[in-house]
Amino acid sequence: MSVPNAEENNNEMVVTPWEVKGEVDYQRLIKEFGTQPLTSQLLQRVEKHTDRLHLQLEREIFFSHRDLDTVLDLYDKGTKFVLYTGRGPSGPVHIGHLVPWIFTLHMQKTFKTRLYFQLTDDEKYLISDNADLKTTAKWSYENALDLIALGFKPEDTFIIYDTKDIDLLYSITLEVAKRITYSTARSSFGFQDSTNIGWVYWPAIQAAPCFIHKKLTGENVPALIPAAIDQDPYWRVTRDIAQKLGYYKPAQIHCRFLPGLGAGGKMSASMPETSIFTTDQPDAVKKKIWTAFTGGKGTAAEQRKTGADPTVCSIFQYYFFLFEQDNKKLSERERKCRGGEMLCGECKKDLAEKLNEFLMKHQECREKAKDKIEQYHIKRK
Amino acid sequence: MSVPNAEENNNEMVVTPWEVKGEVDYQRLIKEFGTQPLTSQLLQRVEKHTDRLHLQLEREIFFSHRDLDTVLDLYDKGTKFVLYTGRGPSGPVHIGHLVPWIFTLHMQKTFKTRLYFQLTDDEKYLISDNADLKTTAKWSYENALDLIALGFKPEDTFIIYDTKDIDLLYSITLEVAKRITYSTARSSFGFQDSTNIGWVYWPAIQAAPCFIHKKLTGENVPALIPAAIDQDPYWRVTRDIAQKLGYYKPAQIHCRFLPGLGAGGKMSASMPETSIFTTDQPDAVKKKIWTAFTGGKGTAAEQRKTGADPTVCSIFQYYFFLFEQDNKKLSERERKCRGGEMLCGECKKDLAEKLNEFLMKHQECREKAKDKIEQYHIKRK
Repeated sequence: MSVPNAEENNNEMVVTPWEVKGEVDYQRLIKEFGTQPLTSQLLQRVEKHTDRLHLQLEREIFFSHRDLDTVLDLYDKGTKFVLYTGRGPSGPVHIGHLVPWIFTLHMQKTFKTRLYFQLTDDEKYLISDNADLKTTAKWSYENALDLIALGFKPEDTFIIYDTKDIDLLYSITLEVAKRITYSTARSSFGFQDSTNIGWVYWPAIQAAPCFIHKKLTGENVPALIPAAIDQDPYWRVTRDIAQKLGYYKPAQIHCRFLPGLGAGGKMSASMPETSIFTTDQPDAVKKKIWTAFTGGKGTAAEQRKTGADPTVCSIFQYYFFLFEQDNKKLSERERKCRGGEMLCGECKKDLAEKLNEFLMKHQECREKAKDKIEQYHIKRK
Repeated sequence: MSVPNAEENNNEMVVTPWEVKGEVDYQRLIKEFGTQPLTSQLLQRVEKHTDRLHLQLEREIFFSHRDLDTVLDLYDKGTKFVLYTGRGPSGPVHIGHLVPWIFTLHMQKTFKTRLYFQLTDDEKYLISDNADLKTTAKWSYENALDLIALGFKPEDTFIIYDTKDIDLLYSITLEVAKRITYSTARSSFGFQDSTNIGWVYWPAIQAAPCFIHKKLTGENVPALIPAAIDQDPYWRVTRDIAQKLGYYKPAQIHCRFLPGLGAGGKMSASMPETSIFTTDQPDAVKKKIWTAFTGGKGTAAEQRKTGADPTVCSIFQYYFFLFEQDNKKLSERERKCRGGEMLCGECKKDLAEKLNEFLMKHQECREKAKDKIEQYHIKRK
């Protein structure tokens, strides 16, 4: 079975729910997907609800949206929203996965709202020839630990495991599926004759958590989905039918991909040498960082003379996305890099230390999460 | 949304899981569907297990099969089988629906085996623009009462309500769906671009009960499906993938449709004036029988002279399918009809009496079924 829309050309940008490769042009995605840029005016509206604009908004890591303005209008008039995001449990979680989750946690705290988090073990089983349900269920469990480790509170965090919780989702998936024709699904997702019928149905299952809050509580509120932009086709088809079913259209806020440690492309679990996993041990982290792609020069002498290029450097992106929250210090690092004052070795050493410090704490929390994971399960509520 | 494979020509035979119309040529169906005729040799093998060949086998109401011989081979060597049949709960049950259920009960008693009975409220919701889930769930309940009223015992009868029991079916549906391409589904079921994605997935849900026994008990045994032949496309795709998944291919035994009381076509709940429902009251039954299509002549005088034609008579079919179990008496009735000795009025009056007697008992049992329906629910086992 082939992945829909897979392209042969390695340089070409491909952004689908199943594949992201090539150099990603985010402005082009806004146009192609028909989403809205996050304007400074809109960011000011978000800032009003918090002390300081979140780093990921300030740095335009979240860069695009659908209906965030509508959600804020409703909120100002007293209609809350719920957050919804998720994860396809195909393997271990890497640092790139944590980016939107960290932002989601911030939004949950700021707006005091509920999060539905979907673990799509069924999807991962359907789209991969080699996957089996036992393994995808195991990764669901492992990935949930990473979510919980970030500090989400059980009272406001409802984790949905698709294969365990299908009974809660099923009637909504039927409502949705009845209103999406094969033709619409094919054009939205690039399905082909060889696509299996489970995959064809699956968009209805990803749609269901957008509407589950009403089913569970009776409250009709919109869902706001913080997620990487590759998932947008799902929300497009869901938005088209939401109102016919008596729900609000799901709103979204889209983030960029944290690049991998290689040259170009998002961090991907299928290239483990270019990804930092949350369970990586210090030596492995040091080694991966040490061999990472940077904007450095062939020799130290040359780099001291001409400086390096942080715009293509994977290490610099780590500071930018997560590990240097102080804007002044980040600018200083950039200046030293461009000026040849700080070489890649030093920059890598600093990052490896910061990463290992972060991971040590994360791994501690992840261990503790094992004792409380059931408190987050939607079935326990 | 249009029904796949719907034909405009009214006389043409159309037999799909969603539509049966025109004059049904069963020999042609055996050829077109690629099934096997029930040979006398095979019937003798069944007869060995029972006192007398069941009326529906003797009269070739069940006329075709797939792998019944294999199931009997396995049975003789000590591998049992389970029975599986079901009902799409789109409305009330009529006498035509009872035909294969009565046979199924006989098979259950003869071979002392378990029955899985699927009520496909999800399908009925997906394929009809006007259906809602509350109504299809209500008909599931009502239709289950009719099944139970026939005398099935709770210890061997496991009723599956799709929307209630999806959690038991889901992992099997995923296994199945992953191995059916859209292309296969389209050619097997006539899906079109306008078909909704729920309908496209649905064959995987009808397949699941074929394999559920292994999931529940660990025993790998084949399923034998007594059902009308219009459902055959479902089993064709299921058979193609069964062995890859480690299951036996489901076997089938196919029955004819009880004709409606009009001229030609199967009894259909969408034409209530030509169907006898299990909840009909005596006066309604009398009226429907009175206006039924027969092979009679324009006047009594003419009919006395030239006789009538039982082969086109809907009333005669009722005797043949269910209400005259004595072959000699049936022949006698036919002789009198052809000879003009017995007119349609008398034949109708007899049938209305027999029908009302049957329905009175059935309705009593149906009332009693309300108190024990939960004992049959697969979730209660």
